[in-house]
Amino acid sequence: MTQTLTGNLLVAQSGGPTPVINASLAGVIGEALQHEDEIVEIYGGLNGILGILNEQFIDLATESQQTVRALGRTPGAALGSCRYKVKKTRDFDRILEVFAAHDIRYFLYIGGNDSQDTAAKINALAIERGYALRVIGVPKTIDNDLSVTDHCPGYGSAVKHIAATVRQMALDNAAIGRHDLVSILEVMGRDTGWLAAGSVLAKRRNALIEDAPHIVLLPEERFNQQVFIDAVQNTLRRQKFCFIVVSEGLIDSEGNFLGAETGSVDAFGHAALGGVGERLRTIVEQNIAGVKARSAKLGISQRAAAQSISQTDSEEAARVGRDAVRAAVAGETGKMIVLVREDKDGVSYSIKTDLVPLEDVANAVKPFPAAWIGEDKVSIGFQFTKYAQPLIQGEVPLAYEGGLPKFATLVANRVESKLDPYEVL
Amino acid sequence: MTQTLTGNLLVAQSGGPTPVINASLAGVIGEALQHEDEIVEIYGGLNGILGILNEQFIDLATESQQTVRALGRTPGAALGSCRYKVKKTRDFDRILEVFAAHDIRYFLYIGGNDSQDTAAKINALAIERGYALRVIGVPKTIDNDLSVTDHCPGYGSAVKHIAATVRQMALDNAAIGRHDLVSILEVMGRDTGWLAAGSVLAKRRNALIEDAPHIVLLPEERFNQQVFIDAVQNTLRRQKFCFIVVSEGLIDSEGNFLGAETGSVDAFGHAALGGVGERLRTIVEQNIAGVKARSAKLGISQRAAAQSISQTDSEEAARVGRDAVRAAVAGETGKMIVLVREDKDGVSYSIKTDLVPLEDVANAVKPFPAAWIGEDKVSIGFQFTKYAQPLIQGEVPLAYEGGLPKFATLVANRVESKLDPYEVL
Repeated sequence: MTQTLTGNLLVAQSGGPTPVINASLAGVIGEALQHEDEIVEIYGGLNGILGILNEQFIDLATESQQTVRALGRTPGAALGSCRYKVKKTRDFDRILEVFAAHDIRYFLYIGGNDSQDTAAKINALAIERGYALRVIGVPKTIDNDLSVTDHCPGYGSAVKHIAATVRQMALDNAAIGRHDLVSILEVMGRDTGWLAAGSVLAKRRNALIEDAPHIVLLPEERFNQQVFIDAVQNTLRRQKFCFIVVSEGLIDSEGNFLGAETGSVDAFGHAALGGVGERLRTIVEQNIAGVKARSAKLGISQRAAAQSISQTDSEEAARVGRDAVRAAVAGETGKMIVLVREDKDGVSYSIKTDLVPLEDVANAVKPFPAAWIGEDKVSIGFQFTKYAQPLIQGEVPLAYEGGLPKFATLVANRVESKLDPYEVL
Repeated sequence: MTQTLTGNLLVAQSGGPTPVINASLAGVIGEALQHEDEIVEIYGGLNGILGILNEQFIDLATESQQTVRALGRTPGAALGSCRYKVKKTRDFDRILEVFAAHDIRYFLYIGGNDSQDTAAKINALAIERGYALRVIGVPKTIDNDLSVTDHCPGYGSAVKHIAATVRQMALDNAAIGRHDLVSILEVMGRDTGWLAAGSVLAKRRNALIEDAPHIVLLPEERFNQQVFIDAVQNTLRRQKFCFIVVSEGLIDSEGNFLGAETGSVDAFGHAALGGVGERLRTIVEQNIAGVKARSAKLGISQRAAAQSISQTDSEEAARVGRDAVRAAVAGETGKMIVLVREDKDGVSYSIKTDLVPLEDVANAVKPFPAAWIGEDKVSIGFQFTKYAQPLIQGEVPLAYEGGLPKFATLVANRVESKLDPYEVL
């Protein structure tokens, strides 16, 4: 029998936002309200770990139910995020000092592997110091590269957006292509190709080969220019246009990024190349006569596209938030909620949640499986489609105002500080 | 009293597609069915003028009502488009020969100013030859740069998408910015800044200054690097991030494109552009210490975003298609349908259609008004918001299948050729 721990709950967000990271926040808030015996106040930490160091908390229980519901369809991280990496002992000391001052007994951290690494260290320190604290991680990342979970909340909505965008751009390309048009879409994915691979969901079931995308390039498969040019030419012989989706992190045979690094310039002070998409455009135009190539780069828009939120993804994001609170109340600590696929034969899709130690999450990256990359090196196998199709199912209607989506804005009532200001060094 | 002209109708699409160019096509088809005395068959010409030269017609009357309705929410040009410029006398001769062979008496051309120039010449030649033909232009272009109409069908949906994208990206930027983040979104607009200006619709009414976008750069205002850098720095002092929207056609003080490419031009002699967003990113990072800049480029996706179709725009696009058929049946020829704003005081929005000679459409470009650009050279005045706000009102629900938008596909029953094949030179 776990001892009841009573105190305040603190939830914070970290790393790159996703379209459903706020659905997880709403899940945490909703569930926390159900545990009055254990959870007294529900605080949100602003800007991830920075807000904890700086004692910047808001009172989430005072937000309206309408606002909390609207969080489920609001991109960005409503509490603010950060990329600050806690390394110094004084920072960890400060975190526990702040927790004690505000009687924080439940700490829920919504983030990717770096953030869960921080959560693991906070948990270890609390145990070492004998401070009663329950730390549970809530996964998020559009990159889908956490090794311990079937998939990550955020991924389904991001690939739903990428696939919808490819399908729509392909209609345009089909109208103007004359076996001479190459369309390149650069998507995120510095280390792994999960997002680029997701673009193949744009293919209709009965038109797997013909439909866009025709070529998908991932960081897991080193770029071979001749294989690439041959694939483009083969596609243009059969199709009016050739659609290419490329991960920003594509690397060449020597392991270097094909896309220009931030800030790199040519002799004239101009950006040498505008990322890997622009680089491929140049390669196509220089190597295939008479072809017009165009590139687009979704950038931040692919992780903020509320119109493409997947209902399945949104529900799962809320669920990992809820289950994190339940686990903490039940006595768990130092763990992260993961999604486990119950039926792996693809007949029906159902998910349960489980817990894994935070230490297992940190620093382990899950690459796109080599077995799911086609023999031609530029296509994605049906195994992936079977895996990813359930994640994009269902739509989440948005609220509109004046012709544009309307999003949740927190009132953000600040919790009074109790300590002297802290200087983050 | 106009003489009744009985024969077949031909409709074709040309130039860059828009999210609602197929709504205009649906409007033409629906109205043509209402005029049985005048219109016998309803043909669609494939790939614009190329399909006419090559006698590639499909029978639109045999398409299902369901398909025609779904056209209203299907991006791309369902009939196919082209950028072929008719210049040769033999081409014009061939067009009239094809029209006579198929008893085409009504020719509706959905396109921008280049296309209407072609339509004008076909009309003039028909009159010269004494071939009874009624030619009516249907306007389309996301660029909004036709001088003769209050606005162009296609523009409202494109800026609805751009503004929604800015609002969503800004939520993400707000979560991660620390007065050190510059976000750049490159949009279309080779000659005019209408699309970039449309991004200011993302600002909420009560937060005009604070909300993104903070800086808007148009081709109508020559780029001044110092003014730009100062504006970015001023914004970063006040805001967590600085959001910049830039037209692909931005030019420097010497009149050169900032995003100039290798000098490739299209069939109309227009320079292909790309890369101004990356160029600005480099300028920011080289001139402002400690700032991170990121760029995104919507590319073709901004004119194919079905999720952002404006109901107002969709209805107007259908209406110009319908009214074009009505005008032709009523005896008009050599004219284009335009949109006229009835109430200009901004209290209520209502539109009527009118006709202008095709010659007035061709080659006249409407720049973004200088008076609507802020004194600071990087902001857009309230007059524009008043003008553009009505154009993005209302949403058009999409049909979904398997988690992705489902679009219309024409059965495309081919009309038998009657002439010998023609070689397009």
